[in-house]
Amino acid sequence: MRVELINTGTELLLGNTVNSHLAFMAQELFPLGLRIQRQITVPDGEAIRDALRESLERAEIVLMTGGLGPTTDDITREITAELLGVELAEDATVLQAISERFARRGIAMTERVKRQAQVPRGASVLSNAHGTAPGLYMKAATKDVTRHVFLLPGPPRELVPMFRNLVIPMLQDLVPGAAASECRTYRIVGVGESNVEAMIGDDILAIENIELGYCARPGEVQVRCIGSPAMLERAEQIIVDKLGACLAARDNSSLEQVVVAELAKRERRLAVAESCTGGFIANRITNVPGASAVFLAGFVTYANEAKTSALCVDSALIEAHGAVSQEVAAAMAEGALRAATADYALSTTGIAGPGGGTDQKPVGTVFVALAARGRSTEVARYSYPTDRETFKWMVSQAALDLLRRTLLEAKPVSSQEHRTPGRGN
Amino acid sequence: MRVELINTGTELLLGNTVNSHLAFMAQELFPLGLRIQRQITVPDGEAIRDALRESLERAEIVLMTGGLGPTTDDITREITAELLGVELAEDATVLQAISERFARRGIAMTERVKRQAQVPRGASVLSNAHGTAPGLYMKAATKDVTRHVFLLPGPPRELVPMFRNLVIPMLQDLVPGAAASECRTYRIVGVGESNVEAMIGDDILAIENIELGYCARPGEVQVRCIGSPAMLERAEQIIVDKLGACLAARDNSSLEQVVVAELAKRERRLAVAESCTGGFIANRITNVPGASAVFLAGFVTYANEAKTSALCVDSALIEAHGAVSQEVAAAMAEGALRAATADYALSTTGIAGPGGGTDQKPVGTVFVALAARGRSTEVARYSYPTDRETFKWMVSQAALDLLRRTLLEAKPVSSQEHRTPGRGN
Repeated sequence: MRVELINTGTELLLGNTVNSHLAFMAQELFPLGLRIQRQITVPDGEAIRDALRESLERAEIVLMTGGLGPTTDDITREITAELLGVELAEDATVLQAISERFARRGIAMTERVKRQAQVPRGASVLSNAHGTAPGLYMKAATKDVTRHVFLLPGPPRELVPMFRNLVIPMLQDLVPGAAASECRTYRIVGVGESNVEAMIGDDILAIENIELGYCARPGEVQVRCIGSPAMLERAEQIIVDKLGACLAARDNSSLEQVVVAELAKRERRLAVAESCTGGFIANRITNVPGASAVFLAGFVTYANEAKTSALCVDSALIEAHGAVSQEVAAAMAEGALRAATADYALSTTGIAGPGGGTDQKPVGTVFVALAARGRSTEVARYSYPTDRETFKWMVSQAALDLLRRTLLEAKPVSSQEHRTPGRGN
Repeated sequence: MRVELINTGTELLLGNTVNSHLAFMAQELFPLGLRIQRQITVPDGEAIRDALRESLERAEIVLMTGGLGPTTDDITREITAELLGVELAEDATVLQAISERFARRGIAMTERVKRQAQVPRGASVLSNAHGTAPGLYMKAATKDVTRHVFLLPGPPRELVPMFRNLVIPMLQDLVPGAAASECRTYRIVGVGESNVEAMIGDDILAIENIELGYCARPGEVQVRCIGSPAMLERAEQIIVDKLGACLAARDNSSLEQVVVAELAKRERRLAVAESCTGGFIANRITNVPGASAVFLAGFVTYANEAKTSALCVDSALIEAHGAVSQEVAAAMAEGALRAATADYALSTTGIAGPGGGTDQKPVGTVFVALAARGRSTEVARYSYPTDRETFKWMVSQAALDLLRRTLLEAKPVSSQEHRTPGRGN
């Protein structure tokens, strides 16, 4: 079955919003053996009509996002009904769900909001657990082929659960004999793309029917394998053997998920002391469900006085070497280790820019330290001259990977199989 | 002139990569009076042909990305030449640039790489400062209309400088009399989308030639106005009057940018104490260049012991009311205020989920507090039952907005005009 995705929204074509729907839906559809063959973005308004008409000529499944809201520029529902030749009518159940939602939140319901209770005749309503506008599913026939049209809300927090909980099961019924091919993604930290390819070598190319892809990201390389489970096992054997400790995750887990899982397996607890990363490392770690079992405290010591008061970094040390120095990085990590009575403590101090650079320590200079009980403190120096947010990302990758590699040397408490938890755990 | 963008790349349709080209190009084109009317994503291969043929029927300017590389699935160059009826020939200058690039990096040049030196007859070469494959510009006539086709590399680090340095100046020559229309985006926090439209009211609709758009984001509504400067002034008057303090930013600044600017204007300094947001608020604030002038310290007190040791929250208070309580939120904010000798301190304590909820305090419950010198501490309770990352985002919006509204009551140190700094400051 051919699938097309139409994203509506003037904000997408003005560049105010990066479209994340395609990537999300593609990953959700893949296990069903479905691939999106074409994706189209059009502005709010009449352009939706042309795009939908064209997609209905080509695809059996048309997914549309956006334009279901209460404001006057939201007309996806109306255009679709018109194009499919069905009338809209107010649906009492939908209206009641909307009223209840407003009542629960103590907000007065305006006349405008009621538009969202309009449902094309014969359409199925997909209830929206995180917003007002429901999704809609309609069937139509063009050129004697049955077409399945899904109208879905634009905001990701409404779309994502609706797609996972309602749309995917409906599509599973439409394509019962899903292809048995799987996609596995491996993440490698601390090695460049061409070196990853060289390390993996040519043996993997001898495996039949494996689709191999390399993708370089800031501070990370991703290797993608698509194929049958048996072939994927053979490929994985090679990848694991050749990459060794450089392989950060074999199931597309993030570095923070791996670190939280490895800490948990060893029953070890972490603190972080951040200057230039400004809370970003703590934030990444606390994004992982269950982080509270292994994460004790973070100290975002942006000002020098905070380094002294919260982490007991000697102000004379800062005076002598500067806040961005190997010595202060080490003292910050050791201070955090003591202050939180943790087993491991990471620290970062550097110059994110745009200002603050010197000849000796230009913008992008950073020191990352790891203190651990019963080990000497390790400090590494890096240089990431880039924008502020990429800088934080690169430094957090370096810090988390330093901890990951150190953890691998320590034995897990129980000898259970190596497995990192997914987001849902 | 109508502009369309075709992004080619199987990785985009597999969901491995989020397409950031549309947002980037749209923002670059807007000041030229150009808008992308349609964006299409197709996989590598023959699908490119159909997409290009269709776009050439509709648009005067067609931008294409991807498929210019050395591998066999990179055929954008060949398909375009064929469709426009021109032959490809090896370009000696391009070949030399490629050879030099490989020599400089000490890598042997394979036969395959030479494909990238093929140039359609009559095309202009756009040199690639960050990669091997050059961009190409071709002119063609369809239906007696001149069409301008740009083939551009897929990797953002090659595309971005090429687009800015070479494509934009060429487009400026094509559309010399750029329309004088501007785009202004307003951000509203603490009010829902339908209520924002109701608050603004109908007066704004009477202004001629204003394109108005509403966009709901988690914890924020964005209102977009496009029009001539004079009409935009009239629209802004209405928006500012009607929305009052709910208008968080009038220049598309983020809430953290507004807060940093308002603190700077008042020469006030901030500390934060985060439990459930886990460093996310500190991270948002430190994303703003110049944050170091107003941000002293963040305490990510995830464990109860950290609340006690870093913030001096009485453990008996935690025992009596629970860590997620009005009392502990207040004590955390007051503790951070004292520990960092700040003027303002925000705190958050809540249940992000998925675990940890109770009947009285279900998942999503959160207390946000603001302590300030010479004021009594304010505490607000919210409920955001959602996923972990959206929860953090919603709580950070509530906390930053509480601070923003409080700051507005305090007089700036100098009476300079209200203006929030852009990212580059």
